[in-house]
Amino acid sequence: MKDELNIFYRIFTTTKDAIEKFMNMLDPVIQNAKDEHERLYYHHIYEEEEQRLSRLVELIPLISKFEKENDEKIFSPANNEFNRLLQELNLEKFGLHNFVEHLDLALFTFTDEERSTLLNQLRDVSYQDYLQVKEMLNKINERFDHDYVDPHAHHDKHYDHLARLGSSPIIKQPNKKKGFTVGSLK
Amino acid sequence: MKDELNIFYRIFTTTKDAIEKFMNMLDPVIQNAKDEHERLYYHHIYEEEEQRLSRLVELIPLISKFEKENDEKIFSPANNEFNRLLQELNLEKFGLHNFVEHLDLALFTFTDEERSTLLNQLRDVSYQDYLQVKEMLNKINERFDHDYVDPHAHHDKHYDHLARLGSSPIIKQPNKKKGFTVGSLK
Ligand SMILES: [Fe+2]
Ligand SMILES: [Fe+2]
Repeated sequence: MKDELNIFYRIFTTTKDAIEKFMNMLDPVIQNAKDEHERLYYHHIYEEEEQRLSRLVELIPLISKFEKENDEKIFSPANNEFNRLLQELNLEKFGLHNFVEHLDLALFTFTDEERSTLLNQLRDVSYQDYLQVKEMLNKINERFDHDYVDPHAHHDKHYDHLARLGSSPIIKQPNKKKGFTVGSLK
Repeated sequence: MKDELNIFYRIFTTTKDAIEKFMNMLDPVIQNAKDEHERLYYHHIYEEEEQRLSRLVELIPLISKFEKENDEKIFSPANNEFNRLLQELNLEKFGLHNFVEHLDLALFTFTDEERSTLLNQLRDVSYQDYLQVKEMLNKINERFDHDYVDPHAHHDKHYDHLARLGSSPIIKQPNKKKGFTVGSLK
């Protein structure tokens, strides 16, 4: 569990930093929106990422706290706080998924080299991190075999469409998704 | 607390139904999207609402369970499950907020009478329900004065821009928001 907590910590501090970069990119776009529709569109994405940021500000210290625990009994479904951690991690799996899509949507309109380079970097890291979080949570849930049932598990099949080939935006190719396994991740 | 649980139950069963109506509206739009950008855009909103629906499927029975409790001691921050309920309700306050914005965004493009009539109905109910959830949670948090600190409280100031006048889409008018109070709600 300790190794996994280390990775969760790394992933969620990385994505917290990525949110801030993305929000900084959105800010002038919102300020200079050409109409109310465009303003609302970017402002809405900005707020969703801001909500995610607020949650991560709570989650990251919770991960840290569990990382420091030496008693393996702590990592048990009998421990309410550990259950809460797993639930929050599950929620942030979806947060990462949605972030990848926010970046993909931005890539359609922010096509200048500076912004698209940054967006592509953030996108690729976030997508790999999303896959890794998903895989780790599946394994943890199996291992503990506790009462907690992932309320979103039946949706996961939908989320594989995030896979893309090369640098093109999201491509829905059910036949390709099998090529993406955690084994292929660094 | 029982009266509030009744209202939460009513609000979240109503919004669950509203999500389903909205998803049914989005489905053909996704199928017939003119390009990948349009498809991703509506599919993304569809998925966010689907995630919310999955959470509500868990939350609604939890509200029901607490509604049936006769021992007031259950409604205490010392009770982990009650704390979890408050956290979930807080998350769904933001879920309702984001839903209002999804409806507002849809109103910009689904301008035919049939869809815009339904969207406006859903929008008005959801906005009132969002305000009421927010107000009730503020009062509950004050009343219990427990350890739980709303991680999003500092964002609430941003969320008042949802207020609008008449049937026009979202208007950011800080001076108007004072006209909306829970006292004015049905
Ligand atoms: Fe979004
Ligand atoms: Fe959204």
